[in-house]
Amino acid sequence: MAAPVEEGGHAGKRGFDWILDLPSGAAAIAMRVKEFGKEDPRRAIHSFKVGLALTMVSLFYYFKPLYDGFGVNAIWAVLTVVVVFEFSVGATLGKGLNRMVATFVAGGLGIGAHHLASLSSPTGELILIAAFVFIIAAVVTFTRFFPKVKARYDYGFNIFILTFSLVSVSGYRDSQVWTMAHERLSTILVGSSTAVIVCVVVYPVWIGEELHNLVVTNIENLGEFLVGFGDAESNNNAKTLGEDHKSVLASKSNEENMANLARWEPGHGRFRLQHPWKQYLKIGTLARECAYKVDALSSSYLNPHVQPIDEMGSRVEAACRELSTECGRVLKELALATRKMKRTKPADAMVASSRAAADDLKLVLDTNKWERQRFVELVPIAALAAVLLEIAETTERIADAVVELSSKAHFKSADSAVSPEQPSPPPAAALPVSSGGA
Amino acid sequence: MAAPVEEGGHAGKRGFDWILDLPSGAAAIAMRVKEFGKEDPRRAIHSFKVGLALTMVSLFYYFKPLYDGFGVNAIWAVLTVVVVFEFSVGATLGKGLNRMVATFVAGGLGIGAHHLASLSSPTGELILIAAFVFIIAAVVTFTRFFPKVKARYDYGFNIFILTFSLVSVSGYRDSQVWTMAHERLSTILVGSSTAVIVCVVVYPVWIGEELHNLVVTNIENLGEFLVGFGDAESNNNAKTLGEDHKSVLASKSNEENMANLARWEPGHGRFRLQHPWKQYLKIGTLARECAYKVDALSSSYLNPHVQPIDEMGSRVEAACRELSTECGRVLKELALATRKMKRTKPADAMVASSRAAADDLKLVLDTNKWERQRFVELVPIAALAAVLLEIAETTERIADAVVELSSKAHFKSADSAVSPEQPSPPPAAALPVSSGGA
Repeated sequence: MAAPVEEGGHAGKRGFDWILDLPSGAAAIAMRVKEFGKEDPRRAIHSFKVGLALTMVSLFYYFKPLYDGFGVNAIWAVLTVVVVFEFSVGATLGKGLNRMVATFVAGGLGIGAHHLASLSSPTGELILIAAFVFIIAAVVTFTRFFPKVKARYDYGFNIFILTFSLVSVSGYRDSQVWTMAHERLSTILVGSSTAVIVCVVVYPVWIGEELHNLVVTNIENLGEFLVGFGDAESNNNAKTLGEDHKSVLASKSNEENMANLARWEPGHGRFRLQHPWKQYLKIGTLARECAYKVDALSSSYLNPHVQPIDEMGSRVEAACRELSTECGRVLKELALATRKMKRTKPADAMVASSRAAADDLKLVLDTNKWERQRFVELVPIAALAAVLLEIAETTERIADAVVELSSKAHFKSADSAVSPEQPSPPPAAALPVSSGGA
Repeated sequence: MAAPVEEGGHAGKRGFDWILDLPSGAAAIAMRVKEFGKEDPRRAIHSFKVGLALTMVSLFYYFKPLYDGFGVNAIWAVLTVVVVFEFSVGATLGKGLNRMVATFVAGGLGIGAHHLASLSSPTGELILIAAFVFIIAAVVTFTRFFPKVKARYDYGFNIFILTFSLVSVSGYRDSQVWTMAHERLSTILVGSSTAVIVCVVVYPVWIGEELHNLVVTNIENLGEFLVGFGDAESNNNAKTLGEDHKSVLASKSNEENMANLARWEPGHGRFRLQHPWKQYLKIGTLARECAYKVDALSSSYLNPHVQPIDEMGSRVEAACRELSTECGRVLKELALATRKMKRTKPADAMVASSRAAADDLKLVLDTNKWERQRFVELVPIAALAAVLLEIAETTERIADAVVELSSKAHFKSADSAVSPEQPSPPPAAALPVSSGGA
């Protein structure tokens, strides 16, 4: 416990420092918390919202008249708010709807099971109830393993088992079972509604918008990297290009989860109810494919300090850098238009310049003869050309997917011209779409 | 509703088919369910276990004497089993411990808050309780955003808010609050224990073992692919090599989650309590790096139908295939040893052959002159060489990480020789270690 005596004055000073450090340690933690909150102010707002919803529903429970109306089960309203309230509207709505529907259906089934069992002898009743609970729990648990069920209804199936067990095993008389099921359903409705209303009304976080921004930012990052890589003048070293594209590699499960939750959300802001969230997953997959290849550009085998070895090498490298810049520009333009939810040019027009650059590179590779050189010196430049041609191809496919999205999602046309899908857009189309519409 | 008359006999037949299809449709669903269960029999076992635990705890609630002991709050035991019971032991233990500790701490705090507030006037009491609930809910919700808290204690923090609200807002007299908190804690202990015991005793699924097998299988798949790719005789087409390595690319968040859950598990089978789970994440990250490069091998720019264009090309290609085979062998050997939890050779000895093959390839590239050829024909073979040299480097780093794991996890020495860390291994070391030890 005590500081080792051998360290003498130094240890003594440390001892004092330890006491002096206490307030500064607390200050450091406070700083850390403040920074963490500033990093994303929605964290603090969400915490405030949870506190608000819970206080509202607690007061509801606390006031005697209401308490008498709902009985001891009123506590389920408090519980519901705590477990249903999530960061985004989609997640909160998904959990709330799952909880309400599952409670309603399982409550009904539970009453039926209880009634059926109570017709039997006391021992028979016990065996029947145990058998019902076992079968329902086992079957529903097995169903939860199916990926489609797991993605959207996992919580509901869990609540289904819960409510069925609670209602069917409660050893009450029939009338009490009805009251219990009814109270449980009402309190869960109150709790879920409180959570959903506070979540939507106070600074809502729409998961659909998050997904939209994530996919756009991913494409933007890839574009930035490629433009930076192409700019040989200002930048001979891939290391200074940053690691933003790395985050694209790991975003798969995140994107899938967001798309599942976004489908619970009603229309909001610029997004309609039937917004094509699945198309974002398609674009995301292509962006990841592109990111693998972009990652290869920054890896060591395309060694940036290997200088072009002769005039031919310089020409190949210049064509490579040109292609990288053009692909980067296409991706940045796609990201910009999608961020503003405007239609882009048709995919063909969009990638015309990058396709021309790719043809240039192929021509350079195709028409020139390589002077007698050691093979090892060709490897970096040849690999660079191979990877960039792959990136150009993926860029075209991303452009196709983004154009498909802008059509499916009825984006505004970029140049106020009449687009084929919208023969006569009303003037109001230029105004922000009202929230909650569709 | 009616079938269109125009289709005549055919439509009539379809109408009959529809009726005849009913049983066959049900049979198809039954087949699908059966297949899904067979795919992983542990799914059916898990469903059985959930049914068992829930029936046990329901009967516990159903029997009057026990019911009288716990009061109406006995229903919390049923609820606890449903929400705590997870597929793996680690997840169930983690949730159970989180729930128990959070209930205990929050229950105490809730009693304190209730007592403090009840000293005030009725209006003051109301305001104080509301303020307490708001502050605790907001602060704890904010804390849940910190990644380290989220990874291991998210559920506990949620239950903390829940229990604190339930205990502090209940408008009872002090003595009743004590009873309520006590009952809630006891029933949650009963529910959590039932869930944990059933989960551990009946065919337990250890998440640590899952993580071990996942990482080993990932390395094995990479090895298989590389050996297959190197075997030019039997296989000129990368397409037949399979897509097993693709799953490695997306396993990041899965592995992190498993490592977090594995830390809740006690020693089991061949795994001790302090098994170095973090080292698996390190190996997993390297395996993913390797998989990106392996994926490039199977991509189109290393076009397998481009035949080597001259003798020099053939020699480079042969050296590439040799290097691929050697890297694949190293990875397969590493996977085999790790699966058996045996020590492998030191990393240097392990990768000696692949390092020699890499040197061979470099030598071929370095000493040979390329005859005048069109540059475009060099691209695939040069890119192939570049990617394979990268794979060889990553393989060495994987070997280092696996050797580090075998040392940290005290794997048995491969050749029954006395290893440095285990001066005199007891004969019992050869027997399976008893489950639940350490």
